[in-house]
Amino acid sequence: MKYNLFVLLLLTVSIGLRAQNQTSKSTVETKTIHSEILNADRAYTIYLPKDYANNPQKKYPILYILHGLSGVNTTWFEKYDVREVQDQLVASGESTEMIIVSPNAGGDPKTEWNGYFDMPGWNYEQFFYQEFVPHIESTYRVIGNKQNRAIAGLSMGGGGSTSYGQRHADMYSSVYAMSALMAMPNSSTPPKADDKFSLLSQSVVKNSCVDYVINATDQQKEELKSVKWFVDCGDDDFLLDSNIDFFRAMRKANIPVEFRIRDGAHDALYWHSALYYCLPFVSRNFKQ
Amino acid sequence: MKYNLFVLLLLTVSIGLRAQNQTSKSTVETKTIHSEILNADRAYTIYLPKDYANNPQKKYPILYILHGLSGVNTTWFEKYDVREVQDQLVASGESTEMIIVSPNAGGDPKTEWNGYFDMPGWNYEQFFYQEFVPHIESTYRVIGNKQNRAIAGLSMGGGGSTSYGQRHADMYSSVYAMSALMAMPNSSTPPKADDKFSLLSQSVVKNSCVDYVINATDQQKEELKSVKWFVDCGDDDFLLDSNIDFFRAMRKANIPVEFRIRDGAHDALYWHSALYYCLPFVSRNFKQ
Amino acid sequence: MKYNLFVLLLLTVSIGLRAQNQTSKSTVETKTIHSEILNADRAYTIYLPKDYANNPQKKYPILYILHGLSGVNTTWFEKYDVREVQDQLVASGESTEMIIVSPNAGGDPKTEWNGYFDMPGWNYEQFFYQEFVPHIESTYRVIGNKQNRAIAGLSMGGGGSTSYGQRHADMYSSVYAMSALMAMPNSSTPPKADDKFSLLSQSVVKNSCVDYVINATDQQKEELKSVKWFVDCGDDDFLLDSNIDFFRAMRKANIPVEFRIRDGAHDALYWHSALYYCLPFVSRNFKQ
Amino acid sequence: MKYNLFVLLLLTVSIGLRAQNQTSKSTVETKTIHSEILNADRAYTIYLPKDYANNPQKKYPILYILHGLSGVNTTWFEKYDVREVQDQLVASGESTEMIIVSPNAGGDPKTEWNGYFDMPGWNYEQFFYQEFVPHIESTYRVIGNKQNRAIAGLSMGGGGSTSYGQRHADMYSSVYAMSALMAMPNSSTPPKADDKFSLLSQSVVKNSCVDYVINATDQQKEELKSVKWFVDCGDDDFLLDSNIDFFRAMRKANIPVEFRIRDGAHDALYWHSALYYCLPFVSRNFKQ
Repeated sequence: MKYNLFVLLLLTVSIGLRAQNQTSKSTVETKTIHSEILNADRAYTIYLPKDYANNPQKKYPILYILHGLSGVNTTWFEKYDVREVQDQLVASGESTEMIIVSPNAGGDPKTEWNGYFDMPGWNYEQFFYQEFVPHIESTYRVIGNKQNRAIAGLSMGGGGSTSYGQRHADMYSSVYAMSALMAMPNSSTPPKADDKFSLLSQSVVKNSCVDYVINATDQQKEELKSVKWFVDCGDDDFLLDSNIDFFRAMRKANIPVEFRIRDGAHDALYWHSALYYCLPFVSRNFKQ
Repeated sequence: MKYNLFVLLLLTVSIGLRAQNQTSKSTVETKTIHSEILNADRAYTIYLPKDYANNPQKKYPILYILHGLSGVNTTWFEKYDVREVQDQLVASGESTEMIIVSPNAGGDPKTEWNGYFDMPGWNYEQFFYQEFVPHIESTYRVIGNKQNRAIAGLSMGGGGSTSYGQRHADMYSSVYAMSALMAMPNSSTPPKADDKFSLLSQSVVKNSCVDYVINATDQQKEELKSVKWFVDCGDDDFLLDSNIDFFRAMRKANIPVEFRIRDGAHDALYWHSALYYCLPFVSRNFKQ
Repeated sequence: MKYNLFVLLLLTVSIGLRAQNQTSKSTVETKTIHSEILNADRAYTIYLPKDYANNPQKKYPILYILHGLSGVNTTWFEKYDVREVQDQLVASGESTEMIIVSPNAGGDPKTEWNGYFDMPGWNYEQFFYQEFVPHIESTYRVIGNKQNRAIAGLSMGGGGSTSYGQRHADMYSSVYAMSALMAMPNSSTPPKADDKFSLLSQSVVKNSCVDYVINATDQQKEELKSVKWFVDCGDDDFLLDSNIDFFRAMRKANIPVEFRIRDGAHDALYWHSALYYCLPFVSRNFKQ
Repeated sequence: MKYNLFVLLLLTVSIGLRAQNQTSKSTVETKTIHSEILNADRAYTIYLPKDYANNPQKKYPILYILHGLSGVNTTWFEKYDVREVQDQLVASGESTEMIIVSPNAGGDPKTEWNGYFDMPGWNYEQFFYQEFVPHIESTYRVIGNKQNRAIAGLSMGGGGSTSYGQRHADMYSSVYAMSALMAMPNSSTPPKADDKFSLLSQSVVKNSCVDYVINATDQQKEELKSVKWFVDCGDDDFLLDSNIDFFRAMRKANIPVEFRIRDGAHDALYWHSALYYCLPFVSRNFKQ
């Protein structure tokens, strides 16, 4: 058994196996979709459960997971290890098998189009709902209803997922927002038409998640109650204030929301650790 | 404030700042020491607390942190984020300011010398105690006594740190072993003199942490009691058995030891998350 | 608003309300069933979800929760706060609405009949399966199938729930054993026919959960795999060894089991804190 | 060994032993002090470390722990198990040996004098600082300096401990506030001289912890920075708003504070679980 142990160590550490019989493994792949709306190719990275290939009839719940400013589609996988955490939580039963997909909404914000909202010259949200979601849910075996769709994100993507959940409450069973850019104060200077960064700012101002709750009609409040909400932000995060404002607005509107302030700042440690709460949360709220 | 928020986001995410006034930051650097004993250069990576440069009189506790098989001196920093976790835990008060150093004991085990023990042709342990520790503790401002020195490690380095703690109990206030290779069964075939991998195996067999406890004299047991022990291993780890054997031997010998089995396997997720327990543990056991 | 705050404080603390609109609350009641088999009345304490009375058509999953030696049917409610924890975890979505019932299997073990197994003169297990379960599941609105039935317990009740899960694998979706008395070594002296305590010991020896796994046929192993297992024991618990033996036997038999060793001893703190893991675990494994 | 196990079970559960060699145990006792200032006897309950009696020369750090409205001196011990948690955390090394004392500031608020502040006819704060603290620290072996004194409390006692820490920053190394009544809006109706409840309200309004920070002079801010602050409140707590206000005021004043929002309401579960954070926090900030 002596050499076996060392061989296992080698395999485990360098090849990344759990030292267990595993006939199949989850897979992660990066693909590209051409968008007519954006007139551009957009990449996405997708996680498929370990038995995806072996169960050609089985359909799965789906989690859309959004990166932050200057992140891209691979960031959740390469920097915050969403695949590894999901694999572990599935093994222990805390998370359910699901497809996880992260679209590219970014890059260097000074030179690249960026963000999850429509802006003059770059209708990302139209792309997301008219092209991206239909493409994903017809290409992969996704159940494809509200009960089995969730959205999550960090920072700019935390605001994006919250805003998407608000204005498309019929599409998501749950929303998990991490360190979210929930709102931004208005600027005195109007954005310049050719300044992508300034247009992005304007789109965030316009889609304030806090104002949406404050101004919601009774009908909209009912819709918001059909979604399970979780807001998670660090006590050293400089975006904490708008998360508090969002929580207070939700509570005042009598819309249930889970709220946690954990130790931490606006950084990778926080988003990695948030996955241990996020993935079980969206799993619990799927209804297969 | 609008642009400020986005600029902060950019800085925070891309440059890795906490969005807070920080006049100083912790530093990590990689250096090389020439070993006469090994007749080779050996690299190490060292973490210095954020106020190290500004307090030229201050001396610090030190943690030696050992990598696993096929890891190297940078692995704890690049893959398991020891610097980021320590920075956060210091900020919240859960960990104390300390120097953290990881020596290179490895590389590809098929071609490189490897491991923390002496073996024919490669006296690593002699190097560690006669050259490495003296070099570090005279080059950096280390307090340099048992009360302010700790050792930790994962897998092969978990066994290494435990064995070092056992046979040098007068040097360490605490030992934290993660997913440790505590012992290995003997092999029927003798190791070949030119097979590094086989010599390494033999050295692990010889330095069984379990047998050390079982065979300890009363005097040695007293010495073991002068160290605080923490053993942390996942329930899906294929090395769990030898950790259980170690725990049982310690308990039978009446030597206090903290023992945890958490969810997880022999992988990066486990070692990253273990730091949140390890760093406060060694901090609590420093006595400045 | 000033007086309101203080009035709320008073109500909250003294009457035990969450300071929220709550039109209904969970209820706990203690009842008695007459057992023909035992020729005795036996008490049980039962938790009904907060909307139980308002949903006269709705059926619920059920958790049988077993007390330890010298505990009684009220112990889980009065000492370890199972109702309060379940109410909180339901509110946050981590646990699902369920009925929780704790039968009386004990009292002072020197004078009272005790334990979960059949013994000469006291066929408790026959009572449990032929009288108690049928009574509960016809009196209360219980779904009543394997997918929606779970069992948990502490100490003697941890062994009881494990053994019940083993020999009635078709009845339970999951088993959560805390600080369990999984086995006991045989005694050299035969039990005396009129010594309840000695008969109890003998019944525990006979129903070893460890031996059951070691000796399981292939058919029995398949049955064991149809149950989700969770073993949770403190590192300072004097029963830890038999939990380790059980875990090793399960792993050797290739039957998945979650295993945790947390900080703690054989005491109320451990069992109270275990509920935060147990209730979500059994919830996840219900399939309504 | 068979009977031993059952005998251990009996002893452990009924007598409350850890099943370990324990030559000494912590003790809890309730005593009475006569107050000249209040012209009344006041009870207090005190925890002494397990080796207190055996080390007649040793002095200890001290934690003052304050109950909430309608609680009394025994509440922390009987309902939230401060003794058991402290014993466990000392055993695992997470908490340090300390004396813990809870004075009686309450009872039924409609008929009894109540609260931690001075009010017409009931100068409780004068009693606390001029009689109670001197009595305790001369009767028991308390180190008796800022570095080794901490204060914590829940609800009304969370506000009390925060306010005490603010106005006596030279006395405490750390403050841990749970579910704290940090402030209360002013009332339009003046309090009646013979209405204890109304006088209590007025005293809380007057001693707003939020206003104290907002109005602090530079000198006072420096004093506040000499204390380590921890604010811990549930997301379903109806007092959360004033905790958020306090946190925001502290951050604006650049005074470091740890802030956590965990799952939970204004109840016993929250305060019991908070002890696992509170006791290590105050321990870390003692400097013996």
